[in-house]
This record gives sequence, C-alpha cells and structure tokens, in this order.
Amino acid sequence: MPSTHDILVTGAAGFLGSHLCDRLLERGHRVMGLDNLSSGTRDNLAHLQSHPRFRFVEQNVTAPLALQVDRIYNLACPASPPHYQQDPVGTTLTSVLGTWRMLELARHCGARLLQASTSEIYGDPAQHPQREDYHGDVNTIGPRACYDEGKRCAETLCFDYLRQHGVAVRVARIFNTYGPRMLPDDGRVVSNFIVQALHGADITLYGDGGQTRCFCFVDDTVEGLLRLMESDSTGPVNLGNPHEITMHVLAAEVLALTGSSAQLVYRPLPQDDPRRRCPDIGLARRLLDWAPQVPLAQGLRRTIDDFARRLASPRTPDEAALPLASALLRVQPAGGQAVSW
Amino acid sequence: MPSTHDILVTGAAGFLGSHLCDRLLERGHRVMGLDNLSSGTRDNLAHLQSHPRFRFVEQNVTAPLALQVDRIYNLACPASPPHYQQDPVGTTLTSVLGTWRMLELARHCGARLLQASTSEIYGDPAQHPQREDYHGDVNTIGPRACYDEGKRCAETLCFDYLRQHGVAVRVARIFNTYGPRMLPDDGRVVSNFIVQALHGADITLYGDGGQTRCFCFVDDTVEGLLRLMESDSTGPVNLGNPHEITMHVLAAEVLALTGSSAQLVYRPLPQDDPRRRCPDIGLARRLLDWAPQVPLAQGLRRTIDDFARRLASPRTPDEAALPLASALLRVQPAGGQAVSW
Repeated sequence: MPSTHDILVTGAAGFLGSHLCDRLLERGHRVMGLDNLSSGTRDNLAHLQSHPRFRFVEQNVTAPLALQVDRIYNLACPASPPHYQQDPVGTTLTSVLGTWRMLELARHCGARLLQASTSEIYGDPAQHPQREDYHGDVNTIGPRACYDEGKRCAETLCFDYLRQHGVAVRVARIFNTYGPRMLPDDGRVVSNFIVQALHGADITLYGDGGQTRCFCFVDDTVEGLLRLMESDSTGPVNLGNPHEITMHVLAAEVLALTGSSAQLVYRPLPQDDPRRRCPDIGLARRLLDWAPQVPLAQGLRRTIDDFARRLASPRTPDEAALPLASALLRVQPAGGQAVSW
Repeated sequence: MPSTHDILVTGAAGFLGSHLCDRLLERGHRVMGLDNLSSGTRDNLAHLQSHPRFRFVEQNVTAPLALQVDRIYNLACPASPPHYQQDPVGTTLTSVLGTWRMLELARHCGARLLQASTSEIYGDPAQHPQREDYHGDVNTIGPRACYDEGKRCAETLCFDYLRQHGVAVRVARIFNTYGPRMLPDDGRVVSNFIVQALHGADITLYGDGGQTRCFCFVDDTVEGLLRLMESDSTGPVNLGNPHEITMHVLAAEVLALTGSSAQLVYRPLPQDDPRRRCPDIGLARRLLDWAPQVPLAQGLRRTIDDFARRLASPRTPDEAALPLASALLRVQPAGGQAVSW
C-alpha cells in the first residue's frame, strides 16, 4: 500500500490539472486545488464538489499562501498561445513569481515540488528528437517568449532551490497533451480540428501542414507526472509521445473519426511557431519505466466524444459550488492567505 | 545643445554604473543613483558626494520606488560569477523582479528604460561572432543559469512592456567590460590577472588558456549605452569589443605592463564556462555609429594604474556620505519608497 499525502495542485481547474486531481484522489490522497480561473474552469472540477478529500482555493499562484502540504504539483500557467499571449507580462510573472512562491512554500513545509515545465523551453529546436540535455533555441524577444522564457527561468529557480535550500524538486518537461476537458477555444491544433470537424467547418492548417507534432493522451501524461513525483530523480525529464505525425495526418484522423467531410484550408504559419517537435523519452523509460500507452485513434475517440457531448448540450454557467478550503490556520511566517483543510 | 534629463541609474554604485553616472553628470543631467550596495560600493561614488545634481538611494531594485524621471538605466544585478552565485535565487529575482519594477516605474512616468542585458544570454555560443539574432545556448539548470536566464527573462519583459504597454525600451547586450573601479575580488579575468601580477603572485589560467574573450574598456561601453538610450532603436544591440584574444595573450599583456615576472598556473575550467565569446557589432556601428576606441594596452594601463593606487593605499572604510534623496513625494500609485530630488 502506498502512503497517502496532502497535496497542493496549482492550476487545478485547468485541463491537465483537473485530470491530475482525479488521479490523486483515486489513489487516496487529500488534494487542495488552487486556481485563479483565468484559463481553468469550475466545470472541470464540478464532479469533485462533494468529494470529501478535495478542497478548492480561488487564488493567483503568485499570491502568498499559507498551507501545510507534503507535495506540490505546480501546474499554474496559461499554456496555449492565445491564452498566454493575452497578457504576456502576466504570463511571465505567473511562471517566475508563481514558481518562486511555491518553492518558498515547499521550503517552509519540507514538501516535494514537481514543476510542470514544457517542451516550449526547447523553442524551435535544431535537434530532433529533443533530449533533456539539449539547451533549446528560444527567441528571447519574440511573441512566445513570455511563456518560453518564463518556464525556463522557473526551471532555473527550481534547481537553485535544490542547490541553495535543499528543496526536493522534480522537473517534468511536458510535450503536447490532449484529451477530454481541453477548452474548445484554446487554440491548440487537436481542439481546433475537433471543433471544426464537429461543426462541419473548414479545417485550418497553418503553413503547408507538413510540420509535425507528437500528441500524448492526458492519462499517459498524468501517469508520468505521478511517477516522476515519487521517483528519486530530479529531472528534468521529457514526458510526451514520441510518435511524430504531420498536421495533415492528424486532420485526416479527426475527419475519419468524426465522419466529417470538412475541407482543408491553409493559413500562414505564426511567428516563431516550431516546425517540428518530438521528445526523446529514453530518460523517462529508464528512470520511471514510463511510456505512453494510449494509441492516437483511441485517445482521439475519447476526446471527440467529450467534445461532442459538451458542444451538444447548451453551455451551463460555470458556477459549480466547489468545496472551499477554510481560512483558519496561518502557517507560513511570510504571511499570505492562510488556508486549511 | 542636447536637452538634459532626470535620470535614474540602478546599480549606480557598481563598476559600470558609477562610470555611467559620471558621464551623465558631465553632460548636465540630474542623476538619481540606486544601489543596495550588495556588490557595489560607496567608494565608487565618493567623488560625487558634493555634486549638486547627484542623489543616492540605498535600496534593492526589487522594492517599490516612487519617483518621477525621464530615463532609467537598469544596471542593477551582481555581474561576476562569484558574486551572482553567492545567492542564485536572489540573482534571478533581482533581474526579473527588478526589471519588472523598473518597467512599471517607466510606464508610470512615461520614461524611457535602457536594460543592461548581457552577452551571457548567448550562453556557451555555437555561433561566432555572436549576432543579435542568435538565440544562444544556455543550460537552464546549470550554475550560471541564475544570471543567464534571469537576464533572458528580463529582455522578454522589456519587449512585452513595449508591445503590451508602449514603454520605450532599449536593450543593450553588454560584453566583457573592464576598467578602473573593478572590484579586486570580483573573480573576472582582467582583475584577477592584474591583482595577481601586482602582488607578484602566480597568474591563474583556467583550462589550457586558449579560450578567447573580447574586452571593452569601460569608457567605450558607457558611450555605447548613452548612444543607444538616445537612439530610435529598441535593440537588442551588442556592445563589446570585437578584438578577440586568448587568455594567454591577456596574461602576457598584463605581465608586460606591470613588469611582473609572475608564473602561469593552470586550473580546471568551471562548469558551463563559455569557451569563446565575441560580439558582432555591425548593428551598433550602423545604428549608433559606435565602435570601441580605446586600444587594449591603453585601457589596461589605466586599469592597472587604478588598481596599483587602490592596492597601495590602506583600505579606507566604505563610508562615503552620499547625498541622499529626500523621502518627500509619493508619486507611484502602487506605493513604495517615495523619493524626490
């Protein structure tokens, strides 16, 4: 029997965060979800509103927080380009200040912290597939830099907290992940294609559609995060699906699975858009005995079913009454909103 | 006649900052120097203690500051590896939070901000010489990352303040600079060699001594900063001396100029130490009509004379009574220490 923990998940109302909360609760842990609901939604957590071991804190990750936990999964940050480019300065500060706040909390609690880093730290990579020792190719002053450089700087903070303060850190570099609960308007290619196909609209390809990506189903990504957190390795470790496909192939899969006869249309490639990105997951295989298990067609089928259900039902107001943490106990000397279970 | 400005210089008590203050005062501006004296010294500004147009604020650049100025030169950050590695987390926060604070101040004042970025954002470069469109090769989790990634992230914030808030930014990527007032113990090669030669001690070379650097005399660097600030270009612009020399050649020059007969000794190269770094200054030549004017032998002679004078005289306590800014006027709505002339 594995022991159970008190766990803080930041970004808990997001796509990935909400699946992570589900899995942690299934395994018997107590979970405190934190989210400012800027790109996450209450809907993603509505099914947990009566869960006895789940609590929710609506707060920005950059604000002080007083809480006693054993594990922190730091996922808070808008992650799709249309979201993270709405307030670029805010995005950078969310990554850097948010990670700093959570590292301070981890240091205070003696907690272990897993940082959700990203394949974006490789930028538009010159090395394929990308190994963890590749240093990346990021334009510091481009429109994606707010996310890329914020996440790079957050990795730096993690390893300096390890060296300088002995905080147990785990850094996962998460590649493209897809699955149920992605936002229909988050601007990522899988959700774009599915929404367009289900609406019978044209499927938009950028560039010539020959650029490649690798897509990992969310259950696989979450399993990787859980294994990394409980492993002895700090990382950074790539978590992604090494099966590389072109945007043309993805579009064809989505059309076939939805039975849509939508047409393909082409648009110019946005600035600094990576032409190709694919993880080398040798390290995750060796250290975590981890590799993706869900084939693309199966993952797409589950994602399409979820989108079809959500698009078919009239949109309900996002007002799930989540079980709030009580503001009782001030633990962190530096102050901040004090919350307890 | 050029118009004069009210100018804030952060890192004013540092090597580069103090020379910048001198030059700005010579040109008729009012100068507010800010420094927390972590690696800067009062001695560097002691000659300004009676200057009618100079004021000093002892404060961390990351703390709020209320002040009305037209120009901000943001130089505050420890810049030599032994200094910036003493408190790596503090170094990253100084760059990121400090630049954010100063950009907010610039936004509030309608001031123009020049960010002192660095050749370190190129990491251990694969391209020689480095042009501004080279994206660099930085290890996000290495011992130099606190400085390199902090400075990269600061560049990102500058360009997002330009795009998002219309702040007039100027970004200079400063390469190795040397000259009078370098700290004898700052661990940089020019000061190390000079101190060792003047003491008749062995000259320490790292690796085989064949790695190259380019050294720019401080007067040239300051002239580049002044020109960039008053130009119409945002940058980033490299400011450095493209004349590339090996550590062996530098050691020989210093030995010749000091008349020392010290021996060379070899030590292992530190982790992530760049093997070679040299600016392409084509952009600075075109946009700013700028190129270094001071030959190495002449710059070294002036630097050696300064070191010889400082090492010969007994070290005086660092207690120059600088003319303090008055804490009178609260200008910035977000609060912070309010200071006026």
